[in-house]
Amino acid sequence: MKKTDPALNVAEMEAYLLEVFPQIHADGEQQYFVDSLDFDKTLVRLKYHDRHLRPGGTFSGPSIMSLGDLTVWIMVLARLGRVPGAVTTSLNVNFLNRPGQVDLIAEGRLLKLGRRLAIGEVSIFSVGVAQPVAHITATYSIPPM
Amino acid sequence: MKKTDPALNVAEMEAYLLEVFPQIHADGEQQYFVDSLDFDKTLVRLKYHDRHLRPGGTFSGPSIMSLGDLTVWIMVLARLGRVPGAVTTSLNVNFLNRPGQVDLIAEGRLLKLGRRLAIGEVSIFSVGVAQPVAHITATYSIPPM
Amino acid sequence: MKKTDPALNVAEMEAYLLEVFPQIHADGEQQYFVDSLDFDKTLVRLKYHDRHLRPGGTFSGPSIMSLGDLTVWIMVLARLGRVPGAVTTSLNVNFLNRPGQVDLIAEGRLLKLGRRLAIGEVSIFSVGVAQPVAHITATYSIPPM
Amino acid sequence: MKKTDPALNVAEMEAYLLEVFPQIHADGEQQYFVDSLDFDKTLVRLKYHDRHLRPGGTFSGPSIMSLGDLTVWIMVLARLGRVPGAVTTSLNVNFLNRPGQVDLIAEGRLLKLGRRLAIGEVSIFSVGVAQPVAHITATYSIPPM
Repeated sequence: MKKTDPALNVAEMEAYLLEVFPQIHADGEQQYFVDSLDFDKTLVRLKYHDRHLRPGGTFSGPSIMSLGDLTVWIMVLARLGRVPGAVTTSLNVNFLNRPGQVDLIAEGRLLKLGRRLAIGEVSIFSVGVAQPVAHITATYSIPPM
Repeated sequence: MKKTDPALNVAEMEAYLLEVFPQIHADGEQQYFVDSLDFDKTLVRLKYHDRHLRPGGTFSGPSIMSLGDLTVWIMVLARLGRVPGAVTTSLNVNFLNRPGQVDLIAEGRLLKLGRRLAIGEVSIFSVGVAQPVAHITATYSIPPM
Repeated sequence: MKKTDPALNVAEMEAYLLEVFPQIHADGEQQYFVDSLDFDKTLVRLKYHDRHLRPGGTFSGPSIMSLGDLTVWIMVLARLGRVPGAVTTSLNVNFLNRPGQVDLIAEGRLLKLGRRLAIGEVSIFSVGVAQPVAHITATYSIPPM
Repeated sequence: MKKTDPALNVAEMEAYLLEVFPQIHADGEQQYFVDSLDFDKTLVRLKYHDRHLRPGGTFSGPSIMSLGDLTVWIMVLARLGRVPGAVTTSLNVNFLNRPGQVDLIAEGRLLKLGRRLAIGEVSIFSVGVAQPVAHITATYSIPPM
């Protein structure tokens, strides 16, 4: 396998995501889209939708944190395959700029994939805006395999 | 005013919360309850409800982070009154133990209330369980008044 | 063993600390003192000393972070005994108030002691001052035993 | 001024660093070197030296955290000039891989430079090794100017 081949491709990842987290699809409608699973850059998009909003029409803090957390989960599974039981042990977020009324794009990178812990960082952008909305690091515990 | 008198009492806080974040009430039903606004300990309860769940029937990570974030917001407003525009600038969470199928209780304490930044820590418990589910610190930026 | 009996007592802990981290003793002089190893509260004191200072005569940020990190290490070993290879995997610090020109006291509490990870929180105070100087959480990875 | 021109050049920055933090030079010998102040990438090098070490001959956690913290300070001052009183308000570090017995290189990027807060992220490497040693985010409070 080449260094850049993920264990799951984009279609498999979106299907597995829906299987594991059915509740993240709002009213049966897909909200999260995996745009890329490249080794050095994973892209996950969260569709602009009323459901995530806080007053003022922007995404809420929790919906931004969820997107960052999910992006790290996707990066871990893209490397390890369908690992049941990988759970977040810690997450740190800095909120940087107010998001716009457009989709959010999470751009993630794995910092470490160890035997017990995986750590990723994610920059989150409003589509078409250069300044990031937020920066997140998250650690997952990987169950013994 | 005594040191222990909050700027808003419990009823005022719950009303203001609903006014500012109407979307946190699921289907018109109250989910977050302020159980105490004491100076040294603020208690906020999140009702056990299908909406927050991940497979297995426990609260999801994002719903736990939201509860911690909201608890710090409540502590800041309990001291400063109805400040529009106090926003989270950073949040750190450690997930400690799997929550049970019962209400969550957030037990918060303000670490600092400065002119520009307020910082709080929150321990989150499943009702009736001594081991904490999560520990959160969050920083709010306070707009010039 | 009672819940409150540490695996190492204060004298054993200070001796082991010196054995493992000889360089933390400045010019052969003891700087860190374990004041208590109680189950629910561990106290570690860092002596006021020119060596830690930044201009203005207060402790530097790094010396405050070191104290927090060391306090969690001490709490882990107080429970597990002399575990070689317990290493910090992550640390989060909020700096709250400028320290004074007096000893620092770290007041620590273990949030979780799992098989693979231990997580502690530490509030750091200037001796005799009620407002905390900093708040730290740190995670240690525990090697298989 | 072009977007890429720092307010201080490398020589000015190293001189100011020595002026503000004289104690970081061990025994009068320079340890920290600013290798680049480019707008999108700042490089700071910490010379391999016994003073930073923990048993085993690698850099200690605190010396890695100090390097990350200092790199963000340098990035802020490269943009704003000699601002007295910019202080760290929070820092988050993930330790990823054991450092080698060579110089450390911190590669920093400002995530936000606001009126009140500046936030930077720093990846730290052992010279010549692709896997990072640590990843740090730090927030500075900028005094009113």
